[in-house]
Amino acid sequence: MKAYEELLGRMKEIDLIGQIGSLLSWDQEVMMPTKAAKIRAEQLAWISKTGHEKITNPRIDIILKELEEFSDLNEIQIANIRLVRESYDRSTKLPTEFVEDMAKHRSKSVISWTEAREKDDFEIFKPDLELAIEYARRKADFLGFEEERYDALLDLYETGLTISKLDPLFNGLKDNISPILNSVTNLKKRNELEWFEKDDWDLQGQEKLSQIVSEAIGFDFSSGRRDSSTHPFCGGPNPDDVRWTTRYSRTDPFGSLFGSMHETGHGTYEQGRPRSLDFQLAGKANGLGIHESQSRLWENQVGRSLEFCIWSLPHWKECFPDNMKDKDEGDLWEAVNSVKPGLIRVDADEVTYNLHIIIRYEIEKLLISGDIGVDELPNIWDDMYEKYLGISPPNYSLGVLQDIHWSMGAFGYFPTYTLGNLYASQLLDAAKNDLPDYNKSISEGRFGDLLGWMRNKIHSRGSILRPDELIEEATGIPPSSDSFVNYISQKVNGLYGI
Amino acid sequence: MKAYEELLGRMKEIDLIGQIGSLLSWDQEVMMPTKAAKIRAEQLAWISKTGHEKITNPRIDIILKELEEFSDLNEIQIANIRLVRESYDRSTKLPTEFVEDMAKHRSKSVISWTEAREKDDFEIFKPDLELAIEYARRKADFLGFEEERYDALLDLYETGLTISKLDPLFNGLKDNISPILNSVTNLKKRNELEWFEKDDWDLQGQEKLSQIVSEAIGFDFSSGRRDSSTHPFCGGPNPDDVRWTTRYSRTDPFGSLFGSMHETGHGTYEQGRPRSLDFQLAGKANGLGIHESQSRLWENQVGRSLEFCIWSLPHWKECFPDNMKDKDEGDLWEAVNSVKPGLIRVDADEVTYNLHIIIRYEIEKLLISGDIGVDELPNIWDDMYEKYLGISPPNYSLGVLQDIHWSMGAFGYFPTYTLGNLYASQLLDAAKNDLPDYNKSISEGRFGDLLGWMRNKIHSRGSILRPDELIEEATGIPPSSDSFVNYISQKVNGLYGI
Repeated sequence: MKAYEELLGRMKEIDLIGQIGSLLSWDQEVMMPTKAAKIRAEQLAWISKTGHEKITNPRIDIILKELEEFSDLNEIQIANIRLVRESYDRSTKLPTEFVEDMAKHRSKSVISWTEAREKDDFEIFKPDLELAIEYARRKADFLGFEEERYDALLDLYETGLTISKLDPLFNGLKDNISPILNSVTNLKKRNELEWFEKDDWDLQGQEKLSQIVSEAIGFDFSSGRRDSSTHPFCGGPNPDDVRWTTRYSRTDPFGSLFGSMHETGHGTYEQGRPRSLDFQLAGKANGLGIHESQSRLWENQVGRSLEFCIWSLPHWKECFPDNMKDKDEGDLWEAVNSVKPGLIRVDADEVTYNLHIIIRYEIEKLLISGDIGVDELPNIWDDMYEKYLGISPPNYSLGVLQDIHWSMGAFGYFPTYTLGNLYASQLLDAAKNDLPDYNKSISEGRFGDLLGWMRNKIHSRGSILRPDELIEEATGIPPSSDSFVNYISQKVNGLYGI
Repeated sequence: MKAYEELLGRMKEIDLIGQIGSLLSWDQEVMMPTKAAKIRAEQLAWISKTGHEKITNPRIDIILKELEEFSDLNEIQIANIRLVRESYDRSTKLPTEFVEDMAKHRSKSVISWTEAREKDDFEIFKPDLELAIEYARRKADFLGFEEERYDALLDLYETGLTISKLDPLFNGLKDNISPILNSVTNLKKRNELEWFEKDDWDLQGQEKLSQIVSEAIGFDFSSGRRDSSTHPFCGGPNPDDVRWTTRYSRTDPFGSLFGSMHETGHGTYEQGRPRSLDFQLAGKANGLGIHESQSRLWENQVGRSLEFCIWSLPHWKECFPDNMKDKDEGDLWEAVNSVKPGLIRVDADEVTYNLHIIIRYEIEKLLISGDIGVDELPNIWDDMYEKYLGISPPNYSLGVLQDIHWSMGAFGYFPTYTLGNLYASQLLDAAKNDLPDYNKSISEGRFGDLLGWMRNKIHSRGSILRPDELIEEATGIPPSSDSFVNYISQKVNGLYGI
């Protein structure tokens, strides 16, 4: 198959270009001196332009058309051909001029959003947001869709995702989470958690704990790094070079640790990719939802479990001998699971987090369909927070202006966060079925069983299947909210004795 | 001038590719996790291949030929056209297959050299060295030369350098340095320097001192970084992003500080490049000799002067309160100027350093001309050390196998180190003429006067002139060894009271 060999060669070059771009971006966030920003943007623009030239080369379409006629292909070949086709189509369907205009508008919008948030003035951002929505609509039209325009945007972040698939999942959540949340807020326990809300958590202790936990989970530091950055993320060019960051605050030891566990989840996924498929799209990590499942799994399902607190308590005491004096695993467990409806998504607990996402999802559907205009947005935002979380933002900065996503034109992105939570629960249920010793292994710090299961069922499968197919293959059932609802009910029951 | 605009556009793209390569290389040395080496090599190979494709594009020859007909050009245009021509010719004169073979042999030779040095067995390296010399000869033949084949190699590292230019400079040195060295070794003072040869130099103190001194000299840390690496170097992609490294040892505080001053010299040169010539070859730092003059200037002429010791003593005491108790500027000055003939080039003092280089230069001439064979090399090496330095290596590792350069095929590189020393002295003499307050400014830590002079005379001139023209423009006289001989005699006189 000469055509397939050529396709592999072209994919390899495109992948190498992407790897180099990843390293430049990581460096920009973590290492780059401040004045270098302007020329770094030129370097990144060159990388982006060069990558775009390679993927839009008409020769790719010719090879694909030839390969798409073949019937005797294995699952990896089928996946590579499908994934290059998706990538080629996405890159060629958007006119170059449109992409450039949109990129310029994105830069402008991020600036006006930043200013609007700082000055708590929605009007500053409004015209740019209006245009950003218009660009998103046009983008969807260029890309094409079968049922709803918004589907074309969802598909960009999670292949095959549509409103008709998401609505049932999110409705299942809404219907079940709201009663749980009401029962918790009515109880209003949790005053005895003040012990950890102090400004004296040693930063070196936090670094040490992050390192211990990440190593214990199985992140390979000879194939990766831990650093700090303002916005924690997991990046790096390839499975041999995975780089995650966290941030440290003297007032909050959980931010750095759970941030580290979250990024370690992303990082172990990247390190576990199938190495025989290096430089191939089929060997890449799957969509954002699956990626988020790996981070949420270690951050929440594992990290906030009583078993993990049992294992980690001695390490907490080693890293923070004064703060942790007289504390037991129960104190730690209650502290890391404090449930309280809040206004800010990124600070939300496991019970309320998905409600923040559902609010954004409902609003994006309305904005993209044109059922509401930007004028109405702030009121609708506040109404939804009142309805789902029983609280209302006192200003725009704590409300509709809190997220950067819309300024970047990333409509359709938010749902993947919740998909990650649902997938994580569903995967863990399936893993527990195969690992009868699971609870004991976590309380003893033997995380290799769970990591091995994920390696086998998820990491090593790359992007061979579509995300929902992969979840079904790994767990035996299609994506569902049942596992998560179950998980969160049990946790709240345990914590609050409801 | 449409052709010139096109040339600028092509230069910019080639420069951006080079910048990205620089960052990848820096990261490889300083940040990269160990297992990432293999794929990093693929990224670098892609960058190198892509850059090569751009510079060898036949279109460049067409534009150059058009521009070379113009007569009404300014000095910057002239320089850019000359420099692109040199770069194009060098890249196209070597057949692709030859370059690939040479690169493969280089990788192989570095490995056999490493093994030979570890096992102290010259025979392991000998066949690869023989072939490396053969490649160097063929490279010279492809590139072309007027008088001596070796000239073509010298020209690669310092444009326009030839044996007929170097011999008088190096003879001037030899004739004058040997008597100075003899007078010093006959005296055999320096026993009271043991105070600094202790294993208790605090590493954080060394980092702090490096930072203080580099900032004081004028390195801009908002346009650069300091890190540590096994082999100290100065890299980074552009003048807004200059990254230097040093290394720290508990037994030797001078290694880290003078390493830092050396790299700070390189770094301030890069930061001082003419910003109106960004992405143009005329705006690049000049040849290796000029670059080395900036590093040696701060490391030696400034860093090992009594005036600098006067200024830096309080900082030494602040960083190492115990070690520096009861020490005065005289103790420090004598310690940093300990003169002793040794076998290892990189550990050599200012008096003997250039003799190490002259030995290598004499040997390279013999090897490239074919006057000696690799069989004779170890004996000739030992004889020359006996002749010039009065000592003879006890084994190969401390002798002929100590440098990596030949294994990398870098014949013609060594002389630039000594050129740097000569240029540094010559430039400092000229600067002192313009700065009557010079000695006082150094002892008071006002380094801006000297840096400003270099910015004005050297840094801002980029590569507009050839290296020897630039030295003559800046100092009023062509390159000469007189300043350096004068400088070193005076220093030895002061130190040893000869």
